[in-house]
Amino acid sequence: MAAAAPPPPPSDVPAMPEIAPPSSRRTLFARVRLAAPSDVPHIHKMIYQMAVFERLADQCAATEASLSSTLFNSPPFQSFTVLLLEVSHLPFAPLPPPPQNPTGVPAFAPIVHAINLDLPIEDPEAEIFASGAEGGGGGAVVAGFVLFFPNYSTFLAKPGFYIEDLFVRECYRRKGLGRMLLTAVAGQAARMGYGRVEWVVLDWNVNAIKFYEDMGAKILQDWRICRLTGEALSAYANIDY
Amino acid sequence: MAAAAPPPPPSDVPAMPEIAPPSSRRTLFARVRLAAPSDVPHIHKMIYQMAVFERLADQCAATEASLSSTLFNSPPFQSFTVLLLEVSHLPFAPLPPPPQNPTGVPAFAPIVHAINLDLPIEDPEAEIFASGAEGGGGGAVVAGFVLFFPNYSTFLAKPGFYIEDLFVRECYRRKGLGRMLLTAVAGQAARMGYGRVEWVVLDWNVNAIKFYEDMGAKILQDWRICRLTGEALSAYANIDY
Repeated sequence: MAAAAPPPPPSDVPAMPEIAPPSSRRTLFARVRLAAPSDVPHIHKMIYQMAVFERLADQCAATEASLSSTLFNSPPFQSFTVLLLEVSHLPFAPLPPPPQNPTGVPAFAPIVHAINLDLPIEDPEAEIFASGAEGGGGGAVVAGFVLFFPNYSTFLAKPGFYIEDLFVRECYRRKGLGRMLLTAVAGQAARMGYGRVEWVVLDWNVNAIKFYEDMGAKILQDWRICRLTGEALSAYANIDY
Repeated sequence: MAAAAPPPPPSDVPAMPEIAPPSSRRTLFARVRLAAPSDVPHIHKMIYQMAVFERLADQCAATEASLSSTLFNSPPFQSFTVLLLEVSHLPFAPLPPPPQNPTGVPAFAPIVHAINLDLPIEDPEAEIFASGAEGGGGGAVVAGFVLFFPNYSTFLAKPGFYIEDLFVRECYRRKGLGRMLLTAVAGQAARMGYGRVEWVVLDWNVNAIKFYEDMGAKILQDWRICRLTGEALSAYANIDY
């Protein structure tokens, strides 16, 4: 879907009362594009915000350096992949066409939407999250991300995607932007002929569960995740058995 | 751990009564090695057996062709990776050294163990699962596999491994062979400096849960898997939003 330009302000009606926002702030342009190494500082800040939100900040050991060394080592969709969500009150200029992917994977064309706002959004961190990306449209800020990677189903004998994180910054929530990120991953999986998109949700998060079910997902009630980590994992470095 | 040769039969004692197995059948040699494309027919048969065991045979759409086209497309450990379990009543000959991995990932040296059996194992499918691999030791059969691939933790900013399937053929169960496969994956993760090894278990499978806890895993009780698949997923092919 192409981004619609905001409607011009009507010229033959009286000035709007002050309570109405300027028309340029009533439309929010949102874009989902592949992240690049230069986005790591923003991604790092959002990972930390997510950890704070989940009250797990003490478990968040990610640094810009550790993210840079572990992400962007493979072509998009072949391994760990990040899509970035940017928003702007001005339309986004077109990005250059994505480079041809040598592995034959369909390239990812940025997705752009125009969202009508009831009220303008005040972003207290707009400066910190200012986007330096091409086609940023002036005043564009980074508002969220999704990190995912291929998984595999032996029953289907097909790859899929596993979504590790989906995050929208607090002031941009409840505007359909999380849906836009999830749809971007599901659309790419469907176009690649993949079998499944999976992620996890906390069992008490009824709002999230309802949202995911509305998106078409089934919640698997009987399965539990087993995790081997920390010293229990490192103890295996020197044993075969 | 090197494989111990079976003890020579004592020469100064009377012949054992017929109920005792020949000494060569009291020791089972087990080897875990990287699977190769030529192992696909055996892997396919085991995936189908697993589906039957889980009463999900109707959901198993894997064929030899679909497995061949989706596995073995990347160097080991970079994407979907299969380790194969073989057993033999004769010691395994050494395999040639693994090829140098161009990505700098530690090569996987086959793991071999000798297991003392109380009773010889009758394998009704020994012919079907005869291993044609080098160093098969004569009479070697394929007895199980583990399929896994990299996952990623943003909090750790580190890759890990996710185990999709771990399977040991029925007549070889309860001999420590599942532990050997799981240990092979955990050991490789630990040596690669990875942060986590994860997999899932059915919540009513108390024996499996106890086994995994004994291996050092924590069971995450609060998380549920969300899955988007089938028509609900393919519907996303043509929508952005």
